[in-house]
Amino acid sequence: MENKLREEIDFAKGDGLVPVIVQDYQTRDVLMLAYMNQEAWEKTQETGKAHYYSRSRGKLWLKGEESGHFQEVKKTLIDCDNDTLVLQVDQQGSGACHMGYRSCFFRTKMREGWQISDKRLFNPDEVYNK
Amino acid sequence: MENKLREEIDFAKGDGLVPVIVQDYQTRDVLMLAYMNQEAWEKTQETGKAHYYSRSRGKLWLKGEESGHFQEVKKTLIDCDNDTLVLQVDQQGSGACHMGYRSCFFRTKMREGWQISDKRLFNPDEVYNK
Repeated sequence: MENKLREEIDFAKGDGLVPVIVQDYQTRDVLMLAYMNQEAWEKTQETGKAHYYSRSRGKLWLKGEESGHFQEVKKTLIDCDNDTLVLQVDQQGSGACHMGYRSCFFRTKMREGWQISDKRLFNPDEVYNK
Repeated sequence: MENKLREEIDFAKGDGLVPVIVQDYQTRDVLMLAYMNQEAWEKTQETGKAHYYSRSRGKLWLKGEESGHFQEVKKTLIDCDNDTLVLQVDQQGSGACHMGYRSCFFRTKMREGWQISDKRLFNPDEVYNK
């Protein structure tokens, strides 16, 4: 089955986009899920800083461009189907989440529902211009 | 912004599906990316074993039903937008990847391209009936 492995990222399957799992390279916490198109991939390779494609805004997005919370890419992995990436990053600043947490996954399923299981590190109103 | 947090998983945004990042609860390696619909979510809650929705086969899928490599769910997290999950699992058997690796992310980006950076643990031909 090894010969099924290909070199190119399969952007076609997801209409030009691949999901990107972003993981803190030290704590190994999952920080966020984002998407890349070909251009975001190339910009990330050129600069070493994570660029994504924002589906809601319909444009290329340098993570941290507004908050200063850039993500320096330490390691990139690809899955067996060539259609999903893992970026292991050095998360600059206080966090990846626009709600003020280190990770977007700051709530855990408990018997009584989703409970906040992480500490808020910054006030988004002071970081983002809204 | 806290009051934007909702209790329900937002299946509607992704046409009935949410992406699920599956992480080994001990090594914290990312094992795979899968998708759940409402039914897969409910089956997972009922049984404690990860169920997904297979987009290629168009049906509910108990991870491990063919290989015996079940995933026991230890912890579930949800992101700030309520549209992505992280499952931290106890991966039974040798691995999550149908190509014989512990993780589907067994290749790392190097100067010369994607290089296999993990050890193959089982022969898929002996595990899956194809």
